[in-house]
Amino acid sequence: MSAYKSFVYVEEIAKYVGEEVTLNGWVYNTRGKGKLQFVLLRDGTGVIQCVAFKQNLSEEVFELTKQLTQESSIKVIGKVVASEKAPGGFEIDVTDLKVYQLAVDYPITPKEHGVEFLINQRHLWLRSSRQHAIMRVRAAVMKAIRDFFDGNGFKLMDSPILTPNACEGTSTLFETEYFDLGKAYLSQSGQLYAEATALALGKVYTFGPAFRAERSKTRKHLTEFWMVEPEMAFFELNDDMDLAEDLVEYIVQYCLKTCQKELATLERDITKLEKVRRPFYRMSYTEAVDWLVKNDVPLTKKVDGEDVEIRPFPWGEDFGTPQEEAIMEQFDKPLIIHRYPTDIKAFYMKRDPQNEKVVLAMDMLGPEKAGEIIGGSQREDNYDLLYQRIIHENLPEEEFKWYLDLRKYGSVPHSGFGLGVERVVKWITGADHIREVIPFPRMSYRIAP
Amino acid sequence: MSAYKSFVYVEEIAKYVGEEVTLNGWVYNTRGKGKLQFVLLRDGTGVIQCVAFKQNLSEEVFELTKQLTQESSIKVIGKVVASEKAPGGFEIDVTDLKVYQLAVDYPITPKEHGVEFLINQRHLWLRSSRQHAIMRVRAAVMKAIRDFFDGNGFKLMDSPILTPNACEGTSTLFETEYFDLGKAYLSQSGQLYAEATALALGKVYTFGPAFRAERSKTRKHLTEFWMVEPEMAFFELNDDMDLAEDLVEYIVQYCLKTCQKELATLERDITKLEKVRRPFYRMSYTEAVDWLVKNDVPLTKKVDGEDVEIRPFPWGEDFGTPQEEAIMEQFDKPLIIHRYPTDIKAFYMKRDPQNEKVVLAMDMLGPEKAGEIIGGSQREDNYDLLYQRIIHENLPEEEFKWYLDLRKYGSVPHSGFGLGVERVVKWITGADHIREVIPFPRMSYRIAP
Repeated sequence: MSAYKSFVYVEEIAKYVGEEVTLNGWVYNTRGKGKLQFVLLRDGTGVIQCVAFKQNLSEEVFELTKQLTQESSIKVIGKVVASEKAPGGFEIDVTDLKVYQLAVDYPITPKEHGVEFLINQRHLWLRSSRQHAIMRVRAAVMKAIRDFFDGNGFKLMDSPILTPNACEGTSTLFETEYFDLGKAYLSQSGQLYAEATALALGKVYTFGPAFRAERSKTRKHLTEFWMVEPEMAFFELNDDMDLAEDLVEYIVQYCLKTCQKELATLERDITKLEKVRRPFYRMSYTEAVDWLVKNDVPLTKKVDGEDVEIRPFPWGEDFGTPQEEAIMEQFDKPLIIHRYPTDIKAFYMKRDPQNEKVVLAMDMLGPEKAGEIIGGSQREDNYDLLYQRIIHENLPEEEFKWYLDLRKYGSVPHSGFGLGVERVVKWITGADHIREVIPFPRMSYRIAP
Repeated sequence: MSAYKSFVYVEEIAKYVGEEVTLNGWVYNTRGKGKLQFVLLRDGTGVIQCVAFKQNLSEEVFELTKQLTQESSIKVIGKVVASEKAPGGFEIDVTDLKVYQLAVDYPITPKEHGVEFLINQRHLWLRSSRQHAIMRVRAAVMKAIRDFFDGNGFKLMDSPILTPNACEGTSTLFETEYFDLGKAYLSQSGQLYAEATALALGKVYTFGPAFRAERSKTRKHLTEFWMVEPEMAFFELNDDMDLAEDLVEYIVQYCLKTCQKELATLERDITKLEKVRRPFYRMSYTEAVDWLVKNDVPLTKKVDGEDVEIRPFPWGEDFGTPQEEAIMEQFDKPLIIHRYPTDIKAFYMKRDPQNEKVVLAMDMLGPEKAGEIIGGSQREDNYDLLYQRIIHENLPEEEFKWYLDLRKYGSVPHSGFGLGVERVVKWITGADHIREVIPFPRMSYRIAP
């Protein structure tokens, strides 16, 4: 390639053993005494120990190495040496060093800081080894998702963010004025559009940010998050579940293969991830309720502001975190729960021809309290039934005319699902809170930096 | 792979010659007489001719093939036959056929429709061969961009869409209420955040939708578009330009290699695209002005609602479409114009140490009236100079504190650029209007479907 590769990166250092190279980066740490200084250099791709011997350097440069502070930016020229003692297996025998800027009073020191302090310094916190490792795993998850779909004949079809209608009600939507056309809403899901493009291109996926204007303060919710949504013509619910399992297996195994260093930094127990191999577990909603009843797990509800427990768990109610976690305790890999009650699921889901009370929906729950990582369904493909649901839910008929058209001109069985990127990254990295797994998290109480 | 592959796709049909397969899709066209019916089937990956011989089918099924209408959805079972006469080189010798739905009065017929009509039917228009081909080229461009960056050591770092501040003024921003925190704005660029992540991870890119609340009604503007923005620590302007050339060459050559069929459908003159090989052309802004003066190309301006021409073109004014197109007439591949006047460029661009009147900015213009496809710069890395620019532009100092921090704690030379996906897809496909190159276009006068 071209002239712009005038320096090398730590992650490729093994290629240059015995050669003199130029590295650019920031001071991660220093130590030394007398005639020897060690400078740990981070360059974004890794950390390497640079060894400065007084006898190899001008007096001026050697003095400089003593003044280096955390996060000072420097250029290091030196010879790459394989060394068993050095962290990472290589070190740099420094021949010259230049300082871009000496950093003064870098606010994040090796001592413990509170999360509130750190999140206010998010632009700097990202340089810390844990956050850095999480971000690299995140990038790997994003790449694994794209590779999976691109490699399996899917075409990326971006759904719009600005939408005139509300897929699931406007109460949790961000809204904005849209010129002379009234209000526009930030999309919560690209699914309806993906259905249109799947009928044009066969197998598609939409992959972008999604928005939820919810005040919830859990460790699993963001107001802005990334979601991938495949949609497939001629796929029925079982096909949909098979694809979801394949995807999640692929993502986890890809991270195990390509992020060993990062998972080690995060002290992640990878034996747990290694178990994520198909087939996963499956049960129907009704079977799940039976299990809850048998194991005396109640429904928990707020009534007049007080927590109330209802026993036995009543068929027809949605599961919350307590039920999901109770069920998942038995499982060491993901579980798909399918065929949920019609009344608690979205209008576009297809009724089960075997049982009108349930829809052909499915949610995938992750192990280790990962929660719901996928939600999907086979879509209603009958014009009349879909029309009834739209009327029943008081949705604006005119806004859904184009969506109904998909059931008019060559309707076909089709299915899809959405996978929340941050939920998956949180699970794989073992991060405490979802705000750590996206570069600049947005929550109801935070929009900066 | 797993059970969900119970049918095959047209694009992989060559693998199944001599075998009986199941195809699913929509009727693209039919013809026939007497004992022979031809059904052109599209399945989103391609179109194939299905041949129904009366003698091979039950009477009922043969009658069905005669009733098929455009966009009816069907399942076809038959033997794959290599045939030189058939479009695409293969055809299906039908043994059975099932109808999912007979489509009645599909609104888009092979006759000519006006664009206004078609764009209102965008959810169906996407099924047409031209739109379908454009969408597949778009998916290839998206993939080429990701492959290029992932393959060159860049890490994807998503910038937030919801932002508290305005990178380039609030007049062209969509705004929304953000809980108790006041207003939030939809991002026009992820650059400022990418600068932070580049200093944490070395080489990064952010790739997502961007928003501009502009009323412009040109063929090149959308209110919602996709932009990729690489940002590289330790890259100076020349490195930035080299990278931009490499990227654009890679995208164009990737499309030539993988989208031959689509470009043929679009009747694109690919000899023009084949020329897009490095090195591209480069000239400074000052050289460009000299050329305009020498060739008597005036500045065109609206003064009191009237077009006024100013000769000779005055140094310091920005170029518009007339100047860009005049300059590009000489070139058969992209041109980079660099070092623009400080006063017409953004506050975060670094002044040229050789000449304070210009900044280290660069724009790449495409040939064939593609217009500006890339805009980038080396960033101001001096705290004091950047602070002065922020004050000078009346930007809210408090909101930019974190951004200034990047110049305080290990500041380094760094550069980046933004490439507009739709501009590039429009150029490569030769589409007339930018609304054709995104699945569901958003313009100031359109937000549906």
